[in-house]
Amino acid sequence: MIYFDNGATSYPKPRNTYIAAAEAVKNYGFNSGRGGYVESVRTAEKIYSVRERLGALFNFQPQNIAFTANCTAALNMAIKGSVKKGDHVIISSLEHNAVWRVVNHLKKDGVIDYDIAKFSYDDDETVNNFESLIGKRTSLIVCMAASNVFGVAFPIDKIGETAKKHGIRFIADGAQAAGVMPLDAEKDNIDILCAPGHKCLYGIMGTGFIAVREGVHLETILDGGTGSESLNPDQPDFLPDRLEAGTLNNIGIAALGAGIDFINSVGMENIYERELGHAQMLYDGLSENKNAVLYCKRPEKYKNAPIISFNLGDNQSEKTAALLAKRGIAVRAGLHCAPLAHSHFGTLERGTVRLCPSVFTTRRECEFLLNTLKKI
Amino acid sequence: MIYFDNGATSYPKPRNTYIAAAEAVKNYGFNSGRGGYVESVRTAEKIYSVRERLGALFNFQPQNIAFTANCTAALNMAIKGSVKKGDHVIISSLEHNAVWRVVNHLKKDGVIDYDIAKFSYDDDETVNNFESLIGKRTSLIVCMAASNVFGVAFPIDKIGETAKKHGIRFIADGAQAAGVMPLDAEKDNIDILCAPGHKCLYGIMGTGFIAVREGVHLETILDGGTGSESLNPDQPDFLPDRLEAGTLNNIGIAALGAGIDFINSVGMENIYERELGHAQMLYDGLSENKNAVLYCKRPEKYKNAPIISFNLGDNQSEKTAALLAKRGIAVRAGLHCAPLAHSHFGTLERGTVRLCPSVFTTRRECEFLLNTLKKI
Repeated sequence: MIYFDNGATSYPKPRNTYIAAAEAVKNYGFNSGRGGYVESVRTAEKIYSVRERLGALFNFQPQNIAFTANCTAALNMAIKGSVKKGDHVIISSLEHNAVWRVVNHLKKDGVIDYDIAKFSYDDDETVNNFESLIGKRTSLIVCMAASNVFGVAFPIDKIGETAKKHGIRFIADGAQAAGVMPLDAEKDNIDILCAPGHKCLYGIMGTGFIAVREGVHLETILDGGTGSESLNPDQPDFLPDRLEAGTLNNIGIAALGAGIDFINSVGMENIYERELGHAQMLYDGLSENKNAVLYCKRPEKYKNAPIISFNLGDNQSEKTAALLAKRGIAVRAGLHCAPLAHSHFGTLERGTVRLCPSVFTTRRECEFLLNTLKKI
Repeated sequence: MIYFDNGATSYPKPRNTYIAAAEAVKNYGFNSGRGGYVESVRTAEKIYSVRERLGALFNFQPQNIAFTANCTAALNMAIKGSVKKGDHVIISSLEHNAVWRVVNHLKKDGVIDYDIAKFSYDDDETVNNFESLIGKRTSLIVCMAASNVFGVAFPIDKIGETAKKHGIRFIADGAQAAGVMPLDAEKDNIDILCAPGHKCLYGIMGTGFIAVREGVHLETILDGGTGSESLNPDQPDFLPDRLEAGTLNNIGIAALGAGIDFINSVGMENIYERELGHAQMLYDGLSENKNAVLYCKRPEKYKNAPIISFNLGDNQSEKTAALLAKRGIAVRAGLHCAPLAHSHFGTLERGTVRLCPSVFTTRRECEFLLNTLKKI
């Protein structure tokens, strides 16, 4: 298989991710923070070390990083935990359903109303599109770092700055950026960062996290045992316990730690440049293919995550993906759970074929894909 | 290590659980239901096969079983998804914080009020304790199959029957029973069953499920991408998609499948009888130890999950656990995230030391523990 679906889940994983997962099943399958025996304590230390690595990567306090089942769970906790009745929320015009369905649910329940700020290639215009929607009731801005469909990146730092200026909470969705493009709580004024472990961070499925800036309070949507303050009828008010009810996915967390170590050893910028190089190669190759339809500008450093969307001729995107699948090439087609983004770029009707290289993708694989696309 | 903390997470796992987890990291780390390539389709088939196995074990439709991060997430989804403003809820006097904190949060928010039905060794009295609390606004009964602290089992079938008679929804928490004691949606009139994958089902951490009887509607607390009906601003109204937002823990789910296969190959009743035999041996041994304090009757078939709680002399439970840990014996002490249960049995002040054997526990390990307890 030639794999270009890294935007869904990265594959393969670094060798140490596999090793860490297998080790963790045997050595860290104990409930941390709930037992006093040595294996439980060692497990707690292992998990804390992954909080530390995530904290260092994104500039959050380690204890303010709570592990979740996936990025979607983190976004639900961040958004639903932030708003109160009567609040106004602003999201971008490219948001994933992990944000759109959440704000829509809150709106349907009469809790909030929301507006959609348009993405623009001009960063100042994008920021202005957000700022012009801010009203007296606006309490929250939610924006992805980069589109999961088209790869275009948002000026997260400037949006964060604008939110801060207006005293508005800012949630960044790092689904396609965390691990490959720089995200920094302080520099980017991110109040809450949500991200998956199994994409650019090279962990395995079943992990995500919510990172919360010191002093940012969240109501909880998942309550339960935390191994702490058991007599308290409410969730403890300290992190990470407040946001971690029930048994954690220790195996996934340990594997995520290995994924982060891999990123640190190769260097995030090196990974990004390699992946971006592939994305540019794919873009250039598709530009030369008269049958290919592209929707965005050529990917550029810090303006794009390494993701390309295209279509072939008049084909429905699923048809092109099926033709590629027959030839052993794995891509994803359709709406990618992001109808807003397709609405923005005018691809709602047939969706797009999405190409996401990872650090393990080779130029030969890109060539093979481009040549295959010329023939079908 | 001699491990008696299987009530937190079972350890070790059956050999095939380890193998399935390692295989899944390599072969099933693809997003199911979102890609058309063969690896994605195979992953979807694998996941469906685990739904089928769970469905067969607990008598639910396979597609009505949604995977969750843990049992706590499932209980939050079940309880919060079931109630509306003004509802009255009944829970048992032994509930875990995964239920108590949830209903408490709902009460604090002014959504529901709730009452607590007392456990009794007399099943009819227990049922009567529930039934006598039913009022016009009562819409939901939540009850554990067995106590995570004291092992005592509830007459789930009779509570289910009572709920049905009154047209009330019934949620069973199978945390300490699912996989070892029989639970059946139809026979026991369970509307929603919540359970973890990493305890009696011999899967790994990071998995749980919510099983929903046909026709039972749930509001969602986690919204997001499902790979289906992407244009729909709401969660799809069909299962399992409605309750599965974001990427699943495929690795955990595949390992859970192997855990269920293990149970089926050994036979659930055989496993139960073996574990219950160990629990009885521990109980009898502790009864002969003049320094040991027991709180419940001797465990009996179908009246108890294989869990024993005790204390030693005037020790705080944590002190006894620490002394055992020094001798290589892993137990858990304290409140076990279940203050209600300790309040019921009068152990709130010092908690209890909990002993949970698994199918892999040996009589020699039980003997070693009992002998060790005589010496400390």
